[in-house]
Amino acid sequence: MIDITMIKFAVLADCFHCPVKGEFEFNIDWLLLIDHQGDIAATYPPQHPEYADLLAIFKRNNCLQVIPKGEYLLPGLVDLHCHAPQWPQAGKGLDLPLYDWLQNYTFPLENRYSDNDFAANVYQDVTKTLLANGTTSAVYFASIHRQSTELLAQTCLNVGQRAFVGKVNMDNSDQCPAYYCEPSVTAAIDDTELFVNNVFELAGNQSRLVHPVITPRFVPSCTSELLQQLGGLVQRYDLHMQTHCSESDWARDYSIQHYGVSDVTIYADMGLLNNKSILAHSIFLNQADIEKINQFKAGIGHCPLSNMYFANAAMPARELLDHGVQIGLGSDIAGAPSPSIFRASFDAVSHSRVREEGVDIYLPASKRGTANARISFVEAFWMATVGGGQVLDAKVGLFEQGYHFDAIVIKANSAIGNLRIWPQFDSAKDILEKIITLAQPENVAKVWVQGKAVI
Amino acid sequence: MIDITMIKFAVLADCFHCPVKGEFEFNIDWLLLIDHQGDIAATYPPQHPEYADLLAIFKRNNCLQVIPKGEYLLPGLVDLHCHAPQWPQAGKGLDLPLYDWLQNYTFPLENRYSDNDFAANVYQDVTKTLLANGTTSAVYFASIHRQSTELLAQTCLNVGQRAFVGKVNMDNSDQCPAYYCEPSVTAAIDDTELFVNNVFELAGNQSRLVHPVITPRFVPSCTSELLQQLGGLVQRYDLHMQTHCSESDWARDYSIQHYGVSDVTIYADMGLLNNKSILAHSIFLNQADIEKINQFKAGIGHCPLSNMYFANAAMPARELLDHGVQIGLGSDIAGAPSPSIFRASFDAVSHSRVREEGVDIYLPASKRGTANARISFVEAFWMATVGGGQVLDAKVGLFEQGYHFDAIVIKANSAIGNLRIWPQFDSAKDILEKIITLAQPENVAKVWVQGKAVI
Repeated sequence: MIDITMIKFAVLADCFHCPVKGEFEFNIDWLLLIDHQGDIAATYPPQHPEYADLLAIFKRNNCLQVIPKGEYLLPGLVDLHCHAPQWPQAGKGLDLPLYDWLQNYTFPLENRYSDNDFAANVYQDVTKTLLANGTTSAVYFASIHRQSTELLAQTCLNVGQRAFVGKVNMDNSDQCPAYYCEPSVTAAIDDTELFVNNVFELAGNQSRLVHPVITPRFVPSCTSELLQQLGGLVQRYDLHMQTHCSESDWARDYSIQHYGVSDVTIYADMGLLNNKSILAHSIFLNQADIEKINQFKAGIGHCPLSNMYFANAAMPARELLDHGVQIGLGSDIAGAPSPSIFRASFDAVSHSRVREEGVDIYLPASKRGTANARISFVEAFWMATVGGGQVLDAKVGLFEQGYHFDAIVIKANSAIGNLRIWPQFDSAKDILEKIITLAQPENVAKVWVQGKAVI
Repeated sequence: MIDITMIKFAVLADCFHCPVKGEFEFNIDWLLLIDHQGDIAATYPPQHPEYADLLAIFKRNNCLQVIPKGEYLLPGLVDLHCHAPQWPQAGKGLDLPLYDWLQNYTFPLENRYSDNDFAANVYQDVTKTLLANGTTSAVYFASIHRQSTELLAQTCLNVGQRAFVGKVNMDNSDQCPAYYCEPSVTAAIDDTELFVNNVFELAGNQSRLVHPVITPRFVPSCTSELLQQLGGLVQRYDLHMQTHCSESDWARDYSIQHYGVSDVTIYADMGLLNNKSILAHSIFLNQADIEKINQFKAGIGHCPLSNMYFANAAMPARELLDHGVQIGLGSDIAGAPSPSIFRASFDAVSHSRVREEGVDIYLPASKRGTANARISFVEAFWMATVGGGQVLDAKVGLFEQGYHFDAIVIKANSAIGNLRIWPQFDSAKDILEKIITLAQPENVAKVWVQGKAVI
């Protein structure tokens, strides 16, 4: 039998998770043992010979959490792309072209994060709101300000969210407003290296719940020298890197025009890609880009709702998944308004369906859309959990030994929510689909990150 | 001054509404006077000469409802297309083709409504859930069962929702399962006429909060004789009529193949169209259809999210709005999973944007999508309120004298919700867009229907 002294607590629950892409498991009455580090030490199905004894021991020791029937334990959700400082902008301005949106609204807003008091207020709210929506791992683009970005990292630690936080780098004076631009490559790199070290050394971050992320905004807003030196930091410290990749025609064309190659190649050449790089969007990839991403085991943060407004196209998610590309989901706050990764999952399915079905009533059905482009709800949920974990090279998204215990409890049939489970009609697959399509914060009854209850 | 004895209570609030399609008004500190019938007797802006006196009188008489600053009064939302018996199915099965979905899931479920106890349970929940989402007027497709459909009408009365309730008619044995089909045209018509009279005479329905609606499912599921005789009932009683219209290629083609004309023409020829007919979906209309709909002043229930899954195309909402067609929104529970008309508003914008932007990354941007296809958030909100009221020929959706006082209060910045208003950044337009994109039931703080507080 497992060494009981290693175990901090046990959870008895009906659990959903997706060990295999495109499939799901619904494990009834599983027993999960969580160790003192907050990791999953073991999982036991009811038919395991030691199950009954273990259950009795943890009950007797008063360290068994029993999730009531009708509630479901799911891996916590992973948001691969959230602009934390844009939170006040969520839900407005979606009728603007991306360039205007950035120059007239987003950059002035982001520039306010030179004010730490303002930042503290927003960062407290956005991290807690994502947690309330079930997001246990969040990848944040912050602003160019080191101090308030460190404050965001500290806030994530304080609220107990696993976080990957980046100080934004942007220094191309042709594309960045004068008031919101790194003063020089040297200053930017020094500041970024200091940021990396300060995050590692944050009080309370010994277990590295919060990671620093190298964050060039995207090719157009950076000089090649800055990209090169940021790549140096990625290599030297083996860091996460996040950026925007081939989000729109304009962004893709910019790289070709200025470098003669795609942005994926630029990122690779600059040393920015590794097995934990997050390429947000990545709509307009060519075959060479896809192969390069797979070669580095880098991954994509798919933000379907944002794409409907700003990308001028849909990500060919079906083909990319079939090519084995690591893909997770992103809210893209505030390029899309919802902080919910359940919503992003649903939108990923919807956008793939629009792609398959087409839109134009004036074309015959046979010429509308792209056949077999759909992705399933289960694939979307896989992206929201396992896929996100793979992109981050983090042990999250599954209930398996050695994974961090990042989990949420979903409660249906609550007084004001919209999620209804009818036991006489709903199969396990139905229940999972309903959770994806209808769960809102009021259905997120409990959230653990690294074994710690944070909601 | 207005006769004060006519007034039941007054509301002081910051109000949004859309008297003109495509525009909105944000009226700060307006005073709305509600009469004893629950209708709006008058509205007063602060600069009106009698405003201060009236405010003082209603305060003194303890019949002034003051909506706190930071909360907003909006017209209640109108759902033009909700299949109440499909509520247990909401959020599942969206990967099925429409025909399979109907035959294998929906019809067996709908047939359970021969059981009044089962129906009572679901109908209580669906009506309350729609109210909690801010839907003050709902148009319900029920099932073919007269008794439980009358129970749905009574339930709407009990929970205080303005409702338009239809006993479904379907008798084409080629398209309907044997277990879920009218026994004969005569029986169906007798039953439907009895239903109409029974709803008018329901205890508590003297003011006609609940209307009976003639409800042929759609052309394929009805014989022409049934359609003809249902048209007779529409004409004889001047009734509302709801049905599905040109929802998919298959449905459109069925009419052409079997009647040689489009379903709009069939409905018109059968006497089913008038100034309060609700044609759900109406994706594949030709120019003659559009002119016919306008000629009868009939209207469309636009269900954008359902269209992404089941219609194989997007409604050309931009062109139809510009043609002056009356259009409101529908949830299409359970063809789409969300009971929220805010969500339908957002999806209407999103689907119009996908139509405009296109989806196919392999086409050049100039060949992707349809230029100028977008609709705005304000237009979507107009459809959710005024447009829906126009389709129903009901005095709802506006804060104007003579309109019913159907209204909701939206509260932002609540503990668990996702809707955030930042007074220092958000214009009135921003606030309205944020409400549309992010309001969930927890933000709906209060609901009145016909002047009665129901939440």
